[in-house]
Amino acid sequence: MMRQRVLSSLSGSSRRTAATPLIRTLRTSTSTSPLSRPTPTRSPLLANLATLKKQQCRTMSEKTAATPEPPLRERSKFVRGCLKVFTFTGFASLTLTGAVIAFFLYDASTYKESIDEHDIGVPEIALNPRRGGPKNLPIAEVLVDCYDEVDDYDGEKTQGRKPKPRLVILGCGWGSVALLKGINPENYHITVISPSNYFLYTPLLPSATVGTLEVRSLIEPIRRITSDVKGHFMKANAEDVCFSEKLVEVSQIMPDGEERRFYVPYDKLVIGVGSTTRTHGVEGLKYVNYLKSINDARLIRSRVIENFEQACLPTTTDEERRRLLSFVVCGGGPTGVEFAAELFDMLNEDLAQKYPRILRNEVSVHIVQSRSHILNTYDEALSRYAEEKFARNQIDVLTDARVSRIEKDKVIFTQTDPSTHTTVTKELPYGLCLWSTGVAQTEFAQRIADQIEVQKNSHALETDPHLRLLGTPLGDVYCIGDCSTVQNNITAHITEFVRHIAWENGIKDERNINLTFSQWRSVVPRIKRRFPQTCDHLRRLDRLFEEYDQDQSGTLDFEELKKLLEQIDAKLTSLPATAQRAHQQGQYLAKKFNLLAIAAPGLELNQVQDGDLDEAVYKAFEYKHLGSLAYIGNAAVFDWGNGISAGGGIIFLYLWRSVYFAQSVSMRTRMLMAMDWTKRALFGRDLMNF
Amino acid sequence: MMRQRVLSSLSGSSRRTAATPLIRTLRTSTSTSPLSRPTPTRSPLLANLATLKKQQCRTMSEKTAATPEPPLRERSKFVRGCLKVFTFTGFASLTLTGAVIAFFLYDASTYKESIDEHDIGVPEIALNPRRGGPKNLPIAEVLVDCYDEVDDYDGEKTQGRKPKPRLVILGCGWGSVALLKGINPENYHITVISPSNYFLYTPLLPSATVGTLEVRSLIEPIRRITSDVKGHFMKANAEDVCFSEKLVEVSQIMPDGEERRFYVPYDKLVIGVGSTTRTHGVEGLKYVNYLKSINDARLIRSRVIENFEQACLPTTTDEERRRLLSFVVCGGGPTGVEFAAELFDMLNEDLAQKYPRILRNEVSVHIVQSRSHILNTYDEALSRYAEEKFARNQIDVLTDARVSRIEKDKVIFTQTDPSTHTTVTKELPYGLCLWSTGVAQTEFAQRIADQIEVQKNSHALETDPHLRLLGTPLGDVYCIGDCSTVQNNITAHITEFVRHIAWENGIKDERNINLTFSQWRSVVPRIKRRFPQTCDHLRRLDRLFEEYDQDQSGTLDFEELKKLLEQIDAKLTSLPATAQRAHQQGQYLAKKFNLLAIAAPGLELNQVQDGDLDEAVYKAFEYKHLGSLAYIGNAAVFDWGNGISAGGGIIFLYLWRSVYFAQSVSMRTRMLMAMDWTKRALFGRDLMNF
Repeated sequence: MMRQRVLSSLSGSSRRTAATPLIRTLRTSTSTSPLSRPTPTRSPLLANLATLKKQQCRTMSEKTAATPEPPLRERSKFVRGCLKVFTFTGFASLTLTGAVIAFFLYDASTYKESIDEHDIGVPEIALNPRRGGPKNLPIAEVLVDCYDEVDDYDGEKTQGRKPKPRLVILGCGWGSVALLKGINPENYHITVISPSNYFLYTPLLPSATVGTLEVRSLIEPIRRITSDVKGHFMKANAEDVCFSEKLVEVSQIMPDGEERRFYVPYDKLVIGVGSTTRTHGVEGLKYVNYLKSINDARLIRSRVIENFEQACLPTTTDEERRRLLSFVVCGGGPTGVEFAAELFDMLNEDLAQKYPRILRNEVSVHIVQSRSHILNTYDEALSRYAEEKFARNQIDVLTDARVSRIEKDKVIFTQTDPSTHTTVTKELPYGLCLWSTGVAQTEFAQRIADQIEVQKNSHALETDPHLRLLGTPLGDVYCIGDCSTVQNNITAHITEFVRHIAWENGIKDERNINLTFSQWRSVVPRIKRRFPQTCDHLRRLDRLFEEYDQDQSGTLDFEELKKLLEQIDAKLTSLPATAQRAHQQGQYLAKKFNLLAIAAPGLELNQVQDGDLDEAVYKAFEYKHLGSLAYIGNAAVFDWGNGISAGGGIIFLYLWRSVYFAQSVSMRTRMLMAMDWTKRALFGRDLMNF
Repeated sequence: MMRQRVLSSLSGSSRRTAATPLIRTLRTSTSTSPLSRPTPTRSPLLANLATLKKQQCRTMSEKTAATPEPPLRERSKFVRGCLKVFTFTGFASLTLTGAVIAFFLYDASTYKESIDEHDIGVPEIALNPRRGGPKNLPIAEVLVDCYDEVDDYDGEKTQGRKPKPRLVILGCGWGSVALLKGINPENYHITVISPSNYFLYTPLLPSATVGTLEVRSLIEPIRRITSDVKGHFMKANAEDVCFSEKLVEVSQIMPDGEERRFYVPYDKLVIGVGSTTRTHGVEGLKYVNYLKSINDARLIRSRVIENFEQACLPTTTDEERRRLLSFVVCGGGPTGVEFAAELFDMLNEDLAQKYPRILRNEVSVHIVQSRSHILNTYDEALSRYAEEKFARNQIDVLTDARVSRIEKDKVIFTQTDPSTHTTVTKELPYGLCLWSTGVAQTEFAQRIADQIEVQKNSHALETDPHLRLLGTPLGDVYCIGDCSTVQNNITAHITEFVRHIAWENGIKDERNINLTFSQWRSVVPRIKRRFPQTCDHLRRLDRLFEEYDQDQSGTLDFEELKKLLEQIDAKLTSLPATAQRAHQQGQYLAKKFNLLAIAAPGLELNQVQDGDLDEAVYKAFEYKHLGSLAYIGNAAVFDWGNGISAGGGIIFLYLWRSVYFAQSVSMRTRMLMAMDWTKRALFGRDLMNF
């Protein structure tokens, strides 16, 4: 309508030509843009019909939409579910394949085909060291791999840089490794000296004796750890220390058997040489096995399998078989208990399947413990739990039993009945005897102690609360780990302490002091702060007060107070010889050394060279007992101290493993441990000896 | 319209009531079912308007559909993509977690908490064996784990069951293990006797010397393999065999050092005791290392690391350092070459990173080979490829060099110039010397050979083509592996063979034979069939013909033909002393023994007890050389025989590994190998010694 009118006006005045076409344009359509598509016009009738049609169509489609066709939709849902699973599986497979391929590509990059060749400059002084010291031996001032530090040590070419202080660490156990991991490599020139070139994860040694873990999973190459701190490592034995000239005397056996000795100079020396096993003067220890090192674990494993094999032979008599399969553990501490537990597991899980069944019935495991309970340093409830478990597992626990001597094929021991106090001497044939009764000082530590007059402790080297070796120049020599203990010596400070308390209470002469119970109670926290190790012994204050108030005066006078403190001093054990303590001491030293290095320029500027630098920079060492754990055979016990403890079965086994897994020293060790546990689950333990 | 008409008729005649409502129902709608929804009626005008509106809406929606709104849609596609990735990752994580949990549940089931205790009956005769045999020793007729077989051997209680023949296998190497894996346990009572209780995957020993693989990944406990065939294992040494009484004399050292001996009776005996290293009468071999066993690999590894450590010390002179880092391999066969290659890899990939760089420049690896090429048993092209690679890697290959003697710190050898034939004597200092020049017979095998008159070969025990030990009762004793060789002895058959050929060609007297070249060519396949080992030597038939036609007559007469065959016989080497051959022999025996067991009742029924049962049941043994491979340092060479060979870099390294991976003896070994290779890729090799 509208369009026609427009057309008319466009055509101008009504010019009529001769043949006005009869055909009228109804619709014009173009194919370019939808915009130009004209709105179709229709007659009302047609429009109605179209509308009706559309309405019908719409209704029909609505009907179709509204009425479900049940069978078709259910099937498609199931099919869709399947398709989803397949798609997912496909994706997962592709991803896994992709990951494997990516790993192979990475692996391929780790191979070096061509040699890595280039000239290097080695300091001349490293190749031909000068001699000196008390014994006129070569002094290893510069090592063969001190490439960047040449100028540090060659006096003529220092170029104004102050050389880094030399930190020498003896030993590569828990203490040393914790120190290495915490120290800032920028501050020190670090050298580690040890006869073994790996760090050993000692708490898991019992697992390695039966094959639950492989020995290689417990050790980490020390060079991996030292390289992280740009340190140096020397595989040699420490023989002696010259404190005045700050030289460590070191020896090494050359291939031809000749022993070479030389000096290593230090500015700070850390002694972390560990301990050996205590013998208690028992004879016959040449027949026993120990469990302190990798080789010990290997020997035990080999011996156990050998005993099994020999027990199977037709020529072995019954008596011999029982002896071969009798495993005796001397010492009911964590090491002995864990070994007995691991042995039991292996006997129960692997022996029975792989070896003739007769062996299982003839096997016996015995623990000879001198105290009245195994795990006696643990919570009493845990002790009892472990004992009950062992009883169920027919592990024979002999308490109040002391070993007299060891013979080639039997253990002679005396057992005391605690009620009647009668002592009986017994003998126990063994196929393998493990001696795990405690630690003793190494020869090197003894030699050091002999040099220093104030060192009177025969068990360990004594240090002050800052871990400095007593009797050596302040700040030069530190001791950590099993070889050391912090000197308590409260007695020496008691008089001074009591004097302080007296003065605070307005008493001029401390000998006139008379503490009431409430005063006593307020004094105790201060004692605990000053001497952290006393915490455990200052719990039942009322009992203590009563016990030492001998004249029943209701107060503690000077003598009574002094006696109380002396008694506590005597009761204080040295710090426990555990990995945990060594680890904490190593971490402590690392922190302190870092702080010392930061403070050094300032202190030097102020010419503070003598005096207690350690005290100025950091607090005293405080051991925090985080708890103990022990494995008792597909079960474990946890003692967090302060009466909190727990024990149980498989779940605790996993917890126990998790703790050690988390505490591992590197990803490599974690991976190896995980694979060993997996291998055990899938294939059992390896029962081979070579 | 239509609906209105319907309504009118439904309402019947036009009954008009008093108040006809003015309001007309336009539309009625219910909310129950769509079916009941009445079609709305509208007036035409309204209908048109509605239509127009719809049309407009539709047009508008079409427009909207036609004109994209770019930003909005793209975002949603990206978001959808992200969601898909998240969903997948979520699924993958859940699956992985599920798998891990499932594994832990499985792992938890592998722990036995309570003891596995029950009475077992052990045959009395196992505990107290009767004595007998030439030396009146105990005879282990029944072993302590023969629970189900008691009745088999106690004459009074056989209950009609025929006892299974006793199969005794000496050694647990490639041959024995292949036999164990193939044999049907229902047919034989199997006992394996060996001084080591594991199977060793010897081809990978060089990898274990440097830590690419751990020694434990190369060994499989033999008890796992014997238990699959319900077999028994005894860890003891075989000392001698009494063939007449069918007894093996066996010894074992008890823990107290005492040696016990006893007999093990057999019906079939398989000797697979392997070999030792050949010394070639060179003096000074107490200083060298070998590579035949696990302990050898361990010693080498330990020594290499020890040398590195000592080379780092400040007191080591330059000359000493170079000597310590000089590694000499005597023998250019696969073992020596692979060891040199593995050593090179370790030096290049791990030494350089972990140890002072000075060591890398001072290290040298040497191979002393008596022939003119290393890998001389391989294809010449491969030999050359390996030599070129070693040259690039600066591995010093000394060919035409023969070791005269070994001193504590150097090797004295003579080297011949092939062109001038001058011989020079040289010395080469070493820090480690590997002796890998070939195999020799064990003491036990020598003792056996001494007993039997026909055994004249000093290198190995000779068997017939059915692997039966010559000189022993037919069908009693078999020999496989390194300790044995199949007797060629073509010469003995030559006259007979030539006679056959003569008869076929119509010649009555074989001495008148005159073979033309074409006749010769037709005869050769028959020779090859009869004596499969001759195949390699009967290739260039024209050359052979020419060479032996000495009178240039154009034909081979009797003497010439005989000489030709004798020469070939002389050239024939014994079967190669390889794992492949031992493996094939073990498989062959397994098949044959199974067939013999099946045929036994029939043969017995027909009273066929003498005669060649083996021949009746199965074919002769034929060694198929499937190819050789060698690892040459992040590269490998493959020789498939018949001139087909290939070598290359990393890809071939993976191929090489795949072959050994596939050929591993169990899933456990495969898993361990895979983990070792992964560990090497992630963390490098372990450089620790203990």
